[in-house]
Amino acid sequence: MGSMKAEQLKMALGIIEAASGLRKFDLHIRNVRSVNVFTGEIKPTSLGIYRGLIASPYASENAESSQVFDGEGCFALPGFIDTHVHIDSSLLTPTALAEVITPHGTTAVFADPMEIANVAGMEGIKAFVQSNPVLPYHFYLEVPSRVPTAPGLETTGGELGLAETCEMLAWEHAISLGEIDPSKILGRKTEYLEKVLQAQAAGKIVNGHTAGLSQEELIVYCAAAIADDHECISYAEAKERLSLGMSVLVREGSTERNLEALVTGLVTENVDTCQWMMCTDDKHPDDIAQEGHIDHMVRKAISVGLDPLTAIQMATINAARHFRLDHLLGSLSPGRWADIILTKDLHNLHPEYVFFKGELVAEHGRLCHEIEPSTFPDWLQRTVKITRGKSGSDFHLYADSPKVNAHVIQVLPDQIVNKDSQALLEISQGCVQPSLQKDILKLAVVERYGKNGNIGITFVRGFGLQRGAMASSVSHDHHNIVIVGADDASMACCVRAIERLQGGLVVCEGEQVLAELPLPIAGLLSDQSAGLVISDLKKMNQAAWSLGCQLPSPFMSLSFISLPTVPELGLTDMGLIEVHEHRIIPPFLPLI
Amino acid sequence: MGSMKAEQLKMALGIIEAASGLRKFDLHIRNVRSVNVFTGEIKPTSLGIYRGLIASPYASENAESSQVFDGEGCFALPGFIDTHVHIDSSLLTPTALAEVITPHGTTAVFADPMEIANVAGMEGIKAFVQSNPVLPYHFYLEVPSRVPTAPGLETTGGELGLAETCEMLAWEHAISLGEIDPSKILGRKTEYLEKVLQAQAAGKIVNGHTAGLSQEELIVYCAAAIADDHECISYAEAKERLSLGMSVLVREGSTERNLEALVTGLVTENVDTCQWMMCTDDKHPDDIAQEGHIDHMVRKAISVGLDPLTAIQMATINAARHFRLDHLLGSLSPGRWADIILTKDLHNLHPEYVFFKGELVAEHGRLCHEIEPSTFPDWLQRTVKITRGKSGSDFHLYADSPKVNAHVIQVLPDQIVNKDSQALLEISQGCVQPSLQKDILKLAVVERYGKNGNIGITFVRGFGLQRGAMASSVSHDHHNIVIVGADDASMACCVRAIERLQGGLVVCEGEQVLAELPLPIAGLLSDQSAGLVISDLKKMNQAAWSLGCQLPSPFMSLSFISLPTVPELGLTDMGLIEVHEHRIIPPFLPLI
Repeated sequence: MGSMKAEQLKMALGIIEAASGLRKFDLHIRNVRSVNVFTGEIKPTSLGIYRGLIASPYASENAESSQVFDGEGCFALPGFIDTHVHIDSSLLTPTALAEVITPHGTTAVFADPMEIANVAGMEGIKAFVQSNPVLPYHFYLEVPSRVPTAPGLETTGGELGLAETCEMLAWEHAISLGEIDPSKILGRKTEYLEKVLQAQAAGKIVNGHTAGLSQEELIVYCAAAIADDHECISYAEAKERLSLGMSVLVREGSTERNLEALVTGLVTENVDTCQWMMCTDDKHPDDIAQEGHIDHMVRKAISVGLDPLTAIQMATINAARHFRLDHLLGSLSPGRWADIILTKDLHNLHPEYVFFKGELVAEHGRLCHEIEPSTFPDWLQRTVKITRGKSGSDFHLYADSPKVNAHVIQVLPDQIVNKDSQALLEISQGCVQPSLQKDILKLAVVERYGKNGNIGITFVRGFGLQRGAMASSVSHDHHNIVIVGADDASMACCVRAIERLQGGLVVCEGEQVLAELPLPIAGLLSDQSAGLVISDLKKMNQAAWSLGCQLPSPFMSLSFISLPTVPELGLTDMGLIEVHEHRIIPPFLPLI
Repeated sequence: MGSMKAEQLKMALGIIEAASGLRKFDLHIRNVRSVNVFTGEIKPTSLGIYRGLIASPYASENAESSQVFDGEGCFALPGFIDTHVHIDSSLLTPTALAEVITPHGTTAVFADPMEIANVAGMEGIKAFVQSNPVLPYHFYLEVPSRVPTAPGLETTGGELGLAETCEMLAWEHAISLGEIDPSKILGRKTEYLEKVLQAQAAGKIVNGHTAGLSQEELIVYCAAAIADDHECISYAEAKERLSLGMSVLVREGSTERNLEALVTGLVTENVDTCQWMMCTDDKHPDDIAQEGHIDHMVRKAISVGLDPLTAIQMATINAARHFRLDHLLGSLSPGRWADIILTKDLHNLHPEYVFFKGELVAEHGRLCHEIEPSTFPDWLQRTVKITRGKSGSDFHLYADSPKVNAHVIQVLPDQIVNKDSQALLEISQGCVQPSLQKDILKLAVVERYGKNGNIGITFVRGFGLQRGAMASSVSHDHHNIVIVGADDASMACCVRAIERLQGGLVVCEGEQVLAELPLPIAGLLSDQSAGLVISDLKKMNQAAWSLGCQLPSPFMSLSFISLPTVPELGLTDMGLIEVHEHRIIPPFLPLI
């Protein structure tokens, strides 16, 4: 028996002895009203905790304990679970993220770190999950299933093949194969079907991703026994997926806000909710800080009319059961982790105290202690290798006609979809020119992994810059450097700045850097606190606005414009992508 | 990739192609009203099936199919699941059992074959599960956790240590660690805790067994995160276990009938039922043939007032989800096995047609085709090796006093518990004599594995034999030969007969065998059809009654009398067992 197993056996013996009264508790939380997520009963009781686990949910008032905590008559419920989140697109390290989510009662995060994987492959994921020895929440892995997202249409730093996927599925903290792309199932790609079969054979579930599928397509997708979906935007969609055997992960992120529609339907139809749970998918730190996390979803669900118990079940036991972790999480049962929220009000549910593994980690909306920062290996902090793009001339787009008819990506505020529009553009000194009057700017994607020096260039409308340029090393899903600019010199300045920072957001004008937010970890994450990143992000947006940008979230829009998988157009380092046809097209159309 | 995986991939591709309309269905079940176990909706539809899987639950009326079946407007629902059954104590082989359960719509059996394991260890289980290539139901394994049940108090043919248990937990069809004994958890036996941890680490659940535990004991037991219990006899017990995180397996067997009490409570309290399911545990073939199997439980639950949808969920999806098989079983969703019941009435629910893996296996209460019999290796049919017990003198019980004050096991009709009573018995020629007038007979257990020739002897009251003897090689859980008799010669005759049969039930008088039912497979199972075994069992009971036996089920009572774990007394080959104190005691008390 290995030392790991010896440790587990020691834990098991310890908790049984504590439950038997043979060992004193480490912590005794007295004077609470415990919410039972199985029976719905609420009972005055006290909780005995030993080595981070619940030893007894009905502890004797006089039980011996090293420490006693007065629950002040609060309701006690299990910590909340976010069932699907791209934790690595929050700009924050997992420990910095704790600053904003832990006070809101989230004690388990089921994360699909596909961004890190696109930058640094399996080794990146490994470094990422090992970076946080003292997180105040459980970190479980949804193994990314599509890295790269669009093979052949983008250069990425990492790739996850079948072998890597199988290796990760065997990890102790891997709980699923992450959101499998419907086109891979409907298109019968054997590599992806093998990933699905491997996950199921390993006893793990397979998360789905079914935005916009017709019923016919859904049936084909479900034939692979995909376990769930988090892309429902209407109750009808949710019910359709449920009827085909998929669980529903209700999503409430920064931009995708589906809770009200889905829960309103639930309340009206009174359907069985045991396969419904909650997730954020993508929620920015400032939004979390402002309105909350899963607790915000629970409050909102209750305000829409859902019974508080049902809302709590969705945020706790339903999630644990679906991901086959109910022996560890999701209830205040003996032997489960002592992840506990204490709250004064079940209807307007604000976590007053949050315990994680039996330790008080947050009270009254704040962390109790500073958390030791995540530490990442050096190599993961040196992922930006620029071959081309540091000189203005790298962004010249040559044409030998007097004018060109160019594709122009029309950005829509607060949406990740865009429109394919066209414009006649002038040529000067052999180079195609943007048109500031018409808000047509140059958009470029510079390959940043030192692999081939690709630069994709096209035009974009909607940013509104009147001068200078802005750029980001966060550009879904390949995370090359995406730059939008009024002139080539400013664009090159941005690339040099990002190379110097080894990742980040920058705003430049000519040779001058106006603002910068370093994201040194994989070019995706800051190494600073949540508070600092939130305030720096505001400064970055203000810098972009000062150049004339008119988008509400300039860097958010910039980070999604390069997606080769969201209609209608995308731009990668390989060029302009026609998303529906999944192919690279030339930037110019024939002149009429 | 191995050939197994290649086969799975081919299946996955095939079902996706069939769902996509690229392959014609093998079977098209038209004109049904499909019951959706997730949403509760009932919709007229038709079902497309390919290679035993559901390709589409909403097939087009005009879809191409090799075969079409007219569902006659019946309701279509998923096949029923028996979540816990000692299949090897039915006297029937798995194929013979199909004769009685398949027409009742049971398409999946979660079996704990602890009886076979006690006789023949892991190799016995292996032979048992491999014996049935063409079963008309899914056979999943609950890996027996306690073989032997009472180490040190009984001789068994097989033992399952930690290594064997781990090996079996890794088998593809192993879904849980079977009913773990509370005394092993409460007593902190590390070998058993390791079994629990291994099962959980392998992603399997751990089944519980909590008859009669106090709340304090339950909490300790649950601290090991045991997943369920099938021993609740009252709703209060069920709710208590549920509140501690255990799922409830409602049991309705031949003698243990808990459904009415539990479901009545459910109906009254309207509690969340998603963690409730159904099992039979032990149900004799004649009872199944007469009243039904899981379908009987569904009907009974509905008659008690449960909503039919809820009852169906308990018999289908709830079971599949709890055992983490919902990607394969429990609903009529795409990609699941096409295990389908068609019924005309949802309230008085009798399966009209039963499909298993897309094949019609039963209609109107009968199997459609004969099933190829199970085949067992020779060695598993030669498990009775008698060293001592073939001569009447082997059963002499010597004493050098004029009388003895003997323990007498008082059998209670239709119960497995018994009472410890005492009686003064006469000595003749140095041997203690039974007393036919007082209904005090000799009871013996003869070791039958050729290991040590042990014979345990004591006295019993309640059988009522006036002459002769009866014996069985089915004697829980060790399955040595148990004999009750009015005289030693008849008892020895029984042992010789069972040796000749290599297992079975016999009734003898003097040197004459009055009736016999051979059980050649491991000394536990007949190799005959269910019909034949049921009628033979009646003859065996009649032969016992003809000797004066007054018990309603003589051989059932005989098979449980030797249990060293059910209060108050048991008898094994090692001697008389005081169950509460878990020790061997002498058959005689001091004379007062």
